[in-house]
Amino acid sequence: MLVRAMFLAIFYGLLCVSAAWAAGTKGDSKELALVEKRRFSIDNFNTFNGQSIAKVTVGWESYGELNADKSNAILITHFFSGNSHAAGKYDASDAKPGYWDAIIGPNKVIDTNRFFVLSVDTLANAGVHDPNVITTGPASINPLTNKPYGLDFPVVTIRDFVNVQKALLDSLGIVRLHAVIGASMGSFQALDWAVAYPERVARMVSVIGAGQMDAWSTLSLQHWTTPIMLDKAWQDGDYYAKKQQPIAGLTASLMMITQQALHPRFVNRQHPQHYPLEQAPLQDIRGEHKVVTWLRESAETRAKTMDANHVLYLTRASQLFLAGHGESLQDGLKKVSAKTLFLPASGDLLLMPYLAHDAYSSLRTQGNNTAYAEIGGDFGHLDGVYSISEQAARLRAFLD
Amino acid sequence: MLVRAMFLAIFYGLLCVSAAWAAGTKGDSKELALVEKRRFSIDNFNTFNGQSIAKVTVGWESYGELNADKSNAILITHFFSGNSHAAGKYDASDAKPGYWDAIIGPNKVIDTNRFFVLSVDTLANAGVHDPNVITTGPASINPLTNKPYGLDFPVVTIRDFVNVQKALLDSLGIVRLHAVIGASMGSFQALDWAVAYPERVARMVSVIGAGQMDAWSTLSLQHWTTPIMLDKAWQDGDYYAKKQQPIAGLTASLMMITQQALHPRFVNRQHPQHYPLEQAPLQDIRGEHKVVTWLRESAETRAKTMDANHVLYLTRASQLFLAGHGESLQDGLKKVSAKTLFLPASGDLLLMPYLAHDAYSSLRTQGNNTAYAEIGGDFGHLDGVYSISEQAARLRAFLD
Repeated sequence: MLVRAMFLAIFYGLLCVSAAWAAGTKGDSKELALVEKRRFSIDNFNTFNGQSIAKVTVGWESYGELNADKSNAILITHFFSGNSHAAGKYDASDAKPGYWDAIIGPNKVIDTNRFFVLSVDTLANAGVHDPNVITTGPASINPLTNKPYGLDFPVVTIRDFVNVQKALLDSLGIVRLHAVIGASMGSFQALDWAVAYPERVARMVSVIGAGQMDAWSTLSLQHWTTPIMLDKAWQDGDYYAKKQQPIAGLTASLMMITQQALHPRFVNRQHPQHYPLEQAPLQDIRGEHKVVTWLRESAETRAKTMDANHVLYLTRASQLFLAGHGESLQDGLKKVSAKTLFLPASGDLLLMPYLAHDAYSSLRTQGNNTAYAEIGGDFGHLDGVYSISEQAARLRAFLD
Repeated sequence: MLVRAMFLAIFYGLLCVSAAWAAGTKGDSKELALVEKRRFSIDNFNTFNGQSIAKVTVGWESYGELNADKSNAILITHFFSGNSHAAGKYDASDAKPGYWDAIIGPNKVIDTNRFFVLSVDTLANAGVHDPNVITTGPASINPLTNKPYGLDFPVVTIRDFVNVQKALLDSLGIVRLHAVIGASMGSFQALDWAVAYPERVARMVSVIGAGQMDAWSTLSLQHWTTPIMLDKAWQDGDYYAKKQQPIAGLTASLMMITQQALHPRFVNRQHPQHYPLEQAPLQDIRGEHKVVTWLRESAETRAKTMDANHVLYLTRASQLFLAGHGESLQDGLKKVSAKTLFLPASGDLLLMPYLAHDAYSSLRTQGNNTAYAEIGGDFGHLDGVYSISEQAARLRAFLD
């Protein structure tokens, strides 16, 4: 039941192993104060691909206090379907805290008694219709036309997410990060930080990550976009006036994303009574297996807070990822001065451990202070979220 | 170059490791006589789901001679995108022989000087527009209406494929098979033979196979159907009058199928110059990476010989697979009397080795004569075709 509860949480964009974790502790010593979503804007933001966005506005959160010399900041960069709600609750009655609450909080691994932890919603955040997300993307109003951008929104990259975060840090007077830590697409941002602004990053942790998208991963991600673009309601991205987004395509895309982030061990344990010869699919090609209905309904729930174009843009940002955004991974990694730690998940089928290991190997070969360890578990890619506490001791030591 | 040539062959539905293999041999001793596609029909074929097909017609091939007591027959059951062309050439000028020519022929592992080897096109064969495929499926004319069946064609199962093969064997007077051997979807048929008609199967070899589709695999297969059904040209399967099938959806489906049958090691070796930050995808969300174009063009070529509804029906037949077509795998396997051999591929990401191992373990636990070995290689699922020769000695010994 615990496992089931943890899993269901995916579909609300909040990953709540922390709830179970916190339940085992006592007193207020591990509880964060209530969290507030704040808003940060940049005028005339220049994108990596040479275009400009008249006004960028994103949400952000922080936990703990910035110290006097502003040297205790840790930036958490979020994953594809996530947002800046990394820890804590907005309201005491919230069902679940932020996704990494298991490791972020007073006296936790990322100790908010010691560190000022902050996180920022990405551009084109998938959950644009989630009331706790503030983002700028294709669904935002283009001030030049007073209509949603649609595909006129520039293609954005991981570097653009990093640069929005950098602008926020600048506004706060934070010159150097104690650490930048991210899972999955968040790991892309974390490593790109260490390459793009090496003097500003003391430590970098890549969880279930990669140094670049290889041919295999670029292809894997492409399939996520296909159902959306085939849905006739997509209309080349210009569906906002219709008040009906390409929901069938978005749902199909989320079904795929959800499965790829998991592992057969987990899915089969959740569905031990699966019977291949169910009558509905046996009697009608349009009928479907119960397990398919389960995945579809879960995806439909998630789709309600998401925008199909935003999913396309986040997918593209991921496909374009190359740490340093230069010509090669090796060239990029030469710029890294941060101490680094790579934590892929052994059972990850989406970003297999070889991806993190390639980046780690290059750094080690060139003499950097770097470490590598695999997270175990049965969740697959999502072990980077659900099973992160397995690496608590290593992470704590790394941050000291 | 050899590897590249081998890979390209996938897209023409012919898998040609055999060409390279044969090139290393001399003389006529390993060459089959020219192969002829034959035709076999059944009137009023009753399907597993309780419906009826007025007339089934399928193609079949054979290599070697049936002996006097008809005891030397080996049935080869084909994979999803394959057909009955398992070995040999139709014409001396053919670029490539059948897909398992490396192991089927005079003096080869499956020795046609000794065995009568035959193979049969499945119902709803994906390559219905391939001139060397003869099949009956949704694209066939329904004699009751004189129009293509479309979705009025009954959902067919692996058992139906087996029963068509059984009718052909009956017509040839073959009571008992020396062996039934198949890869991937062909392994489903092979194992189902051993459960459904144990008295007729002396040996069964499951290559890159499974005993049933678990929840995970049922979900994986579902994604193959989504692009087709989302394509507005699909029209609920009733597109035949339009002379334009849902080609975009079918192409997207084949892109996914192709990738899932491979492994990152192979794909990345084929595309070592992949550069994530190409200008086309960086500047336009509709632009795509060169590696995506490569996969798309390959799929478009394959799609020309295929029918979208047939792909849906084969996917469904696969999703419905449970050896024995009963209530549980354990119940089914209790009926097996054949000696069995399971050969999954270590790097298979589509039908991971645990699937074959589960069936093997059940048989071993109940005391059957069974064996298990993994095929190595860098192709992933397709190591079951390309790297089969690695298990030549084991396979030869098994057939003796």
